[in-house]
Amino acid sequence: MGVTITGIGSHIPQGVATNSNFENNKFFNEDGSKFKHENNIIIEKFKAITGIAERRYVKETFTTSDIAAVAAKKAIDNAGIDAETIDYIIVAHNYGDVKHNSSQSDTVPSIASRVKHILRIKNPRCVGYDMLFGCPGWVESMIQANAFIKAGIAKRCLVIGAETLSRVIDPHDRDSMIYSDGAGAAIVEHVDGDSGILTHNSATYAYDEANFIYFGESNNQEISDARKYIKMYGRRIYNFALTNVPEAMKNCLEASGYDIKDLKKVLIHQANEKMDEAILLRFYELYNLPMPEGIMPMTIDKLGNSSVATVPTLYDLITKGKLKNHSINKGDLIMFASVGAGMNINAMVYKA
Amino acid sequence: MGVTITGIGSHIPQGVATNSNFENNKFFNEDGSKFKHENNIIIEKFKAITGIAERRYVKETFTTSDIAAVAAKKAIDNAGIDAETIDYIIVAHNYGDVKHNSSQSDTVPSIASRVKHILRIKNPRCVGYDMLFGCPGWVESMIQANAFIKAGIAKRCLVIGAETLSRVIDPHDRDSMIYSDGAGAAIVEHVDGDSGILTHNSATYAYDEANFIYFGESNNQEISDARKYIKMYGRRIYNFALTNVPEAMKNCLEASGYDIKDLKKVLIHQANEKMDEAILLRFYELYNLPMPEGIMPMTIDKLGNSSVATVPTLYDLITKGKLKNHSINKGDLIMFASVGAGMNINAMVYKA
Repeated sequence: MGVTITGIGSHIPQGVATNSNFENNKFFNEDGSKFKHENNIIIEKFKAITGIAERRYVKETFTTSDIAAVAAKKAIDNAGIDAETIDYIIVAHNYGDVKHNSSQSDTVPSIASRVKHILRIKNPRCVGYDMLFGCPGWVESMIQANAFIKAGIAKRCLVIGAETLSRVIDPHDRDSMIYSDGAGAAIVEHVDGDSGILTHNSATYAYDEANFIYFGESNNQEISDARKYIKMYGRRIYNFALTNVPEAMKNCLEASGYDIKDLKKVLIHQANEKMDEAILLRFYELYNLPMPEGIMPMTIDKLGNSSVATVPTLYDLITKGKLKNHSINKGDLIMFASVGAGMNINAMVYKA
Repeated sequence: MGVTITGIGSHIPQGVATNSNFENNKFFNEDGSKFKHENNIIIEKFKAITGIAERRYVKETFTTSDIAAVAAKKAIDNAGIDAETIDYIIVAHNYGDVKHNSSQSDTVPSIASRVKHILRIKNPRCVGYDMLFGCPGWVESMIQANAFIKAGIAKRCLVIGAETLSRVIDPHDRDSMIYSDGAGAAIVEHVDGDSGILTHNSATYAYDEANFIYFGESNNQEISDARKYIKMYGRRIYNFALTNVPEAMKNCLEASGYDIKDLKKVLIHQANEKMDEAILLRFYELYNLPMPEGIMPMTIDKLGNSSVATVPTLYDLITKGKLKNHSINKGDLIMFASVGAGMNINAMVYKA
């Protein structure tokens, strides 16, 4: 049996923020000190490392649950199913609904309940809950849906990743340029044949790493309120990811019984282009192989880091022929992989 | 096989807030109008309906993750296990860590990662995530742990419910007297024999009911900030619960194959004593039976509504002989049931 994606959808917010939008920001280091360089140099270096030229922000009237519902509707339509037949709605996010001009996260009722409400699904046995697992939340929610289907408590699940990081960024932190908004959603269910989720693994590193991504005050020490924003220790994350992600991917692939050469695509969470390239290079080095061209489709240049939305959005774009020079065909072996706050890592081998 | 609780623990915060603590609050209706009665009458009526005389608040330096870790440590010790052998840490909560004097929910990293960090658990394969499902979150997390064990992706799970509602209450809302802080935790794993989770069911009612419990502004319209607090439509919740919870309990019991007369205890979420009594009366009415004496252990008089912490704390107190006139013995058939924001309902038949 195979727990397979039978419908996919995403929402890419219309608001485009280019790097030039940050030209007049006053950036400070974490200790409040100023940077040596002017903003144009800071932005140029930022672009060279992360690969990010643009990111997307939702419009002022939208929240995470709104865009989650838009992506979900597309996935339901793409699967061609009656929404009343869904057993679970799982929403991966990290900050809930943060309204424009608010600093508060609104998570009651859950985002899943809000999505169900917006979609006008009546069936009470369609159970909605939210799960928080950092950026790897969508892949982890797929693992949970897979477990529910295998345990016999669900047949069909709607798995959503949605986030509006634009609502929790510190304009005085250079890292604010990384974050983006977005939503992706999949319908997963049992399908006869050999397609679907083959193997997966997950890990939480919290002994020394729990606060590599955290909620902290503005880098601008002249701001006297205690409002907090998403913050990260980029260098530590880079080293952590490079040490642990390739190994996790290798373990997952080995468990599937497939050969590295069978792998057609790796859909990896995107927070930093250079980091992702280094992860993939090291992954292939573990097999004494060079990294194949076109193995790792990237969207970070235009979409930034949209957290839990990145991987499902990638899958949506590729399978619908919207990402140049990339395709996924029936029977292709692909891998999903992600790393993020927690620090959490996961990988999944999937047969299309 | 039976997925069974092999360790249980709870943390009841030391801070006692009696009803007299609210004597000088300025209460307003949701529309900003004043109440006809003085506070002593309001409080007397409140006590008569809800049964609440006291509630517990954490001290200023504590957050949800701190008390979650305290309860978790007790559950681990009670089970007599090595914490490094835990496969999943599931934390049910709804507002994350809200610090004293802050209005912001801090959920990155997840509360599960924080708990793992506090407990100094190293094993990366111990995966921690948070789940949001309103007050029924702990029972739902037990259902998820059960599914993971049945699907073969976990052997032993730590399931925590923790909340500090004292951090999200509006002092101008009479309902603020309901809410309390607390944490409960269980170790669940496969045990040979016939003990453990027998049947369960869950439901999400979001078509008309999604916002029965919500995040809203202060009832005091003189307050000009947009800060939001936990809010509810008590009457609608009462009617909703009475209509749907007894039926859910009956369906769950019937699926277990056991007779109503086999049931020794019902551990139900406690937000309102009169509501819980009405639910149990109606549940037994469905079998044309009177409600047996002592079937429903209550803690609400002293502990208020501590959300996801209420049910595991009840189980902890009873099984450790700390709740007068109540006990659960090996082989006893009990039911867990809860209702809350979402609106979500669940029930579970469990053999001790």
